[in-house]
Amino acid sequence: MAHRIANESLRRKITTAEDAAEMIKDGDNVGFAGFTGAGYPKALPVALAEKMRRTHAEGNEFRIGAWTGASTAPELDGSLAEANGISLRTPYQSDPATRARINAGDMDYVDIHLSQVAPLVWEGFLGNLDVAVIEVAGITEDGHLIPSSSVGNNKTYLDRADRIILEVNSWQSADLEGMHDIYYGTALPPNRVPIPLVAPGDRIGEKYYRVDPDRVVAVIETDQADRNTPFKPLDDTSRAIANHLLDFLDYEVEQGRVPKELLPLQSGVGNIANAVLAGLLDRPYHDLTSYTEVIQDGMLDLIDSGKITVASATAFSLSPDAAEKMNRDAAHYRKHIILRPQEISNHPELIRRLGVISMNGLIEADIYGNVNSTHIMGSKMQNGIGGSGDFSRNAYISAFVTPSTAKGGAISAIVPFVSHVDHTEHDVDVIVTEHGLADLRGLAPRKRAERIINNCAHPDFRPMLRDYYEHARKVANGQHTPHDLEIAHSWHQRFLRTGSMKPEA
Amino acid sequence: MAHRIANESLRRKITTAEDAAEMIKDGDNVGFAGFTGAGYPKALPVALAEKMRRTHAEGNEFRIGAWTGASTAPELDGSLAEANGISLRTPYQSDPATRARINAGDMDYVDIHLSQVAPLVWEGFLGNLDVAVIEVAGITEDGHLIPSSSVGNNKTYLDRADRIILEVNSWQSADLEGMHDIYYGTALPPNRVPIPLVAPGDRIGEKYYRVDPDRVVAVIETDQADRNTPFKPLDDTSRAIANHLLDFLDYEVEQGRVPKELLPLQSGVGNIANAVLAGLLDRPYHDLTSYTEVIQDGMLDLIDSGKITVASATAFSLSPDAAEKMNRDAAHYRKHIILRPQEISNHPELIRRLGVISMNGLIEADIYGNVNSTHIMGSKMQNGIGGSGDFSRNAYISAFVTPSTAKGGAISAIVPFVSHVDHTEHDVDVIVTEHGLADLRGLAPRKRAERIINNCAHPDFRPMLRDYYEHARKVANGQHTPHDLEIAHSWHQRFLRTGSMKPEA
Repeated sequence: MAHRIANESLRRKITTAEDAAEMIKDGDNVGFAGFTGAGYPKALPVALAEKMRRTHAEGNEFRIGAWTGASTAPELDGSLAEANGISLRTPYQSDPATRARINAGDMDYVDIHLSQVAPLVWEGFLGNLDVAVIEVAGITEDGHLIPSSSVGNNKTYLDRADRIILEVNSWQSADLEGMHDIYYGTALPPNRVPIPLVAPGDRIGEKYYRVDPDRVVAVIETDQADRNTPFKPLDDTSRAIANHLLDFLDYEVEQGRVPKELLPLQSGVGNIANAVLAGLLDRPYHDLTSYTEVIQDGMLDLIDSGKITVASATAFSLSPDAAEKMNRDAAHYRKHIILRPQEISNHPELIRRLGVISMNGLIEADIYGNVNSTHIMGSKMQNGIGGSGDFSRNAYISAFVTPSTAKGGAISAIVPFVSHVDHTEHDVDVIVTEHGLADLRGLAPRKRAERIINNCAHPDFRPMLRDYYEHARKVANGQHTPHDLEIAHSWHQRFLRTGSMKPEA
Repeated sequence: MAHRIANESLRRKITTAEDAAEMIKDGDNVGFAGFTGAGYPKALPVALAEKMRRTHAEGNEFRIGAWTGASTAPELDGSLAEANGISLRTPYQSDPATRARINAGDMDYVDIHLSQVAPLVWEGFLGNLDVAVIEVAGITEDGHLIPSSSVGNNKTYLDRADRIILEVNSWQSADLEGMHDIYYGTALPPNRVPIPLVAPGDRIGEKYYRVDPDRVVAVIETDQADRNTPFKPLDDTSRAIANHLLDFLDYEVEQGRVPKELLPLQSGVGNIANAVLAGLLDRPYHDLTSYTEVIQDGMLDLIDSGKITVASATAFSLSPDAAEKMNRDAAHYRKHIILRPQEISNHPELIRRLGVISMNGLIEADIYGNVNSTHIMGSKMQNGIGGSGDFSRNAYISAFVTPSTAKGGAISAIVPFVSHVDHTEHDVDVIVTEHGLADLRGLAPRKRAERIINNCAHPDFRPMLRDYYEHARKVANGQHTPHDLEIAHSWHQRFLRTGSMKPEA
């Protein structure tokens, strides 16, 4: 493996994960690589968790602030959370052990728009960054770092951390070299300048991370795969949602409101997003582009088919099969894929300029179009807001997609009043379920309610929603957004009590 | 007055407001000038309302879609609303008659981020724009329009409307010529480019509006003052809020997180904002700048004192005395003031680039830092979101300011769960009341709750808030954002029932 570390002085810092873990102390803030289970450090966190467990067993404190790009994997979030070694976690997670700690009140979780993490770190608002732990695909002879399968906040963590630990992972394809575009033009105000990107395929930065070798305290060699999870086969619900959305885009093109090559597509992670991408394969579009957070399987298929010319993102999120394909053909894919820092992939300036069409999932929406992306029944954190706010606020068209029910029909995704708000009525253009699409652009709240109930809600819940709405119109203190706060959250309460939002028989 | 209309062919289109009103039809969408009671058309809307009244008396329909910059005045919003002549209103209003229509369910109101109106009009998502009714300070010989005391969406409405009606108002100072910067570089995607503004004082556009003379169907001469309302003298509450905020900024400068010239200031309209500006007069700052929506009295004082070198906005919002001063000394002030389209004054790209420090009012905040800026007790619209979302989402530091109580102490501005959300927990850095300041940066929800209750809530409500929070921690389904949805809105319900959020004796 030594060829992955072409720089001599950094090669002299090769050590074990266990020895490197000794360089992290109780109370440190640690910036980890990792975005949607790609490109996270795989050895150090496990060794660190082991050290935490020993320290705790000796009756001593050992917890850190853990900052990442976004979600990581069992080796990182999982092992540290199981060791109860994280006092504060930011910005996004999807790990079961971490989620349990957050909702037990054992771990502080600060949920931040993904585009804002890097500036916040520079601004000093999150405190000092003590250590960066960054996975790379290799180190060049002159000491530059070849990024691996995610970029996330790595550039910023490398710039700002007092001490740096590198993991060089030879599982990652050496041909990733040249796929990345690391922009070094950000600054603190008043010295910020326009970001010179006007198309998803523009390269405005460098292929490598810069690193100050004096701050590198350890280099670890690894050879482990990313957490690549197979996608479920497309189901009828996802396919129906995708078709409604694609029919809508067809119509917008027909009306001349969207160009025939569409506009750069952003899609959240998951089965519905993959269904949309799969659906595009069968439509007569070409010369498509994507400006998004993650490259999923469906995106590779669109690149393979020639439908998408270029996709910009900050990370991969692939199935094991697709990851294998990427590792084999990275030299080909790097002509069509650019991975950037998440500050750039999610930058409001760029999303608005490019006119991105965004598609994100939700947990629940209310009849007036407010969206909850994060909380279960008001109190319990699921994953986090991720980049959905960056995209939906600034998109050309912001769509939210969801099956109309969850838990086998016990939960309605359309409710009278969401139990938490992440995206306000001002930021939600379109809501889509398997039953249909509600185009909310230019509509006042009461018109939105009618459209959402009639087009999107599951038929089982439509009469209940209509009852609530008609009742609210009668008793509300104003007819702009009629509510009865007495019963606005009664569906959630009923679910907590009975396990279903449906009335007790 | 004819000298205000130096262009001969447009001079030939001079007519009466009554005749011009004949050119507007039932069902038209009309884009009006006007932003915070400045620069709105003063004659045409009154004549149009009269025509609507006559038409309604004859048993016929006559209602329009009324689009503006932001709030206007009794002559525009007031007279059209009283005539029940508006079917749909967007984007911001603060008129009592309009508010009554909205809350009676007579008028659709679409509440849009102010930066997004112009792009939405271009994108065609709000429908066709039939007429533009724009106030100007004059017309140059070659047919360019000299903007008056607000810019708002005038550039876009002039560009997009089928028919244009101009009001040339000689009350406005002729010396406004040269104060404005009308940027003509916006486009539809995929043709958008970086906006080349890197400091509040940069001029990137033209002094005048362009206009297609063939689409001008009428020119009306007026001589009426803007709706300039006197500010209340500063009270102790506003002064206390301002002091907490300024002490915080002092501290941030000391810590090196904010430069000693601060960063461009944005402040909402009203007494607290004016108190902050007044407070700056007594602090040792210099070389300050402002990048904001409106120029208030306090801003002129800061310019007079030499503390602020340049202020960028989209409109004035002055007292009668200050307006007189402006009309007298516009030739001086135009060296320090730039009025721009609201698409530019509120542009996310620019607010984030400049690192604006934003200060906006609120109706209520909850213990976790979610902010309601628009709704009274969940259903009733007050004014609208205005530019508060554009600024708070993209600000370097986003502060929200409010007295801790309203209605003589009957309403707490800090509640368990806001009755509507306009700014989510992700977008609120600092909350300030007369009792203190809660710095929420980098805090998880439970820590935020403790700080908001202890620092900001009125002492009368603190024990009630603590009771709610402690109770919620016991019963919630998760400890991330502990709530009891059964009673989360009980304070609002109690107010609606009894006229007070305080428990019945």
